[in-house]
Amino acid sequence: MNALLLSNSAGPAGYLTHAQSWLAEFASTLTGDGPALFVPFAGVTRSWDDYAQQVADALLPAGIATRGLHQEADPACALAEARLIVVGGGNTFQLLRELRRRGLLSLIAERVRAGQAGYVGWSAGANLAAPTICTTNDMPIVDPGGFDALDLVPFQINPHYTSAHPPEHRGETRDQRLAEFCAVNPQRLVLALPEGDALRLDARGLALLGPHEALLFQADRAPRPVAPGKISLT
Amino acid sequence: MNALLLSNSAGPAGYLTHAQSWLAEFASTLTGDGPALFVPFAGVTRSWDDYAQQVADALLPAGIATRGLHQEADPACALAEARLIVVGGGNTFQLLRELRRRGLLSLIAERVRAGQAGYVGWSAGANLAAPTICTTNDMPIVDPGGFDALDLVPFQINPHYTSAHPPEHRGETRDQRLAEFCAVNPQRLVLALPEGDALRLDARGLALLGPHEALLFQADRAPRPVAPGKISLT
Repeated sequence: MNALLLSNSAGPAGYLTHAQSWLAEFASTLTGDGPALFVPFAGVTRSWDDYAQQVADALLPAGIATRGLHQEADPACALAEARLIVVGGGNTFQLLRELRRRGLLSLIAERVRAGQAGYVGWSAGANLAAPTICTTNDMPIVDPGGFDALDLVPFQINPHYTSAHPPEHRGETRDQRLAEFCAVNPQRLVLALPEGDALRLDARGLALLGPHEALLFQADRAPRPVAPGKISLT
Repeated sequence: MNALLLSNSAGPAGYLTHAQSWLAEFASTLTGDGPALFVPFAGVTRSWDDYAQQVADALLPAGIATRGLHQEADPACALAEARLIVVGGGNTFQLLRELRRRGLLSLIAERVRAGQAGYVGWSAGANLAAPTICTTNDMPIVDPGGFDALDLVPFQINPHYTSAHPPEHRGETRDQRLAEFCAVNPQRLVLALPEGDALRLDARGLALLGPHEALLFQADRAPRPVAPGKISLT
């Protein structure tokens, strides 16, 4: 499997700017001449055409020329030939619903798991790579028809991880939400990725990229820091 | 219908302290001698017994003596006789799942809609009173088997409303999340309740209680402030 999972897209320096060197390294590993397809379905308050253009512009310097999956005459056929599948952020529930209602979810999972296509995802697109979307931060604005996702990695991902909390706010903190998830899903690990971080999964294994420690949440244990570099989650 | 929907339970002065006068007024409107039942199912990282005891202690000064629904030998039978149903906060997804899997959701909705039982809810319990739980802030830690809820009020509720956002955080703001909901659900209104506020619904209509303006979100319109007092949402 060949995947790059980013916590976030936008950073202080611009859109996907912080990820350019990772994207270029990733692009260098791709083989074949199938298309690089961008999945814009997580976008809610913007047009998918605009979203696809923004991403195409941002990935071109890394040597990746994407086209929008929503613009394909036969999306299933295009996915079956793709050498790369890129899934952008937005609302995770809408992303999952749109893929499921089009019958594309298992198609993507199978092609990526078989090593036939690479996978790049950020934010909602990183959530989608986990077994379920149960550790998304997004609002459940539509019913996705079940929470099962691509299951590319054997642990849950929480993107945009932060322990910041508005003073005096009585809603749950992120840590409390993740502890709730672990309490009712004790068999699952959750890797919480601070903004600026990413996961790289290839034949060599799993590595944490980026400037920050991630946090590993597990039932009945305090969260544990995970340092950048090669990691093993057990 | 006779309902009191609170944005939050805990405040600077203690647990449900800010709502004591509202709860006392509400209690004075209840008739009959059926039980006042507390639904603890939103509680995840605490025992339902502890949760029910905390709520019983907090409601007693207002003249309401609750017992935990989970402790009833026949919960459906107890609900069918209840003069009051109290639904506490925690995780909205777990709350909905536990009610649905026990077959209690429509029972509660029917009894409250018919005016046979009063309804008090806060946080997740206020979300539950809306047509769906699609405007909860909670993490989808379990699959509730569908997002439809009690539908006691004809609009969505967003509890713990705040426009605060950690600086430099790239995740969506609350306003962005609610705008996303409205974009894909243009037929729905969302009333966002800041902490400290509540809704009172009775034969006289709907009123906003509390110190703060609420915000009304609707597709294709800027959010509109709603002042405390009698309100009409159209």
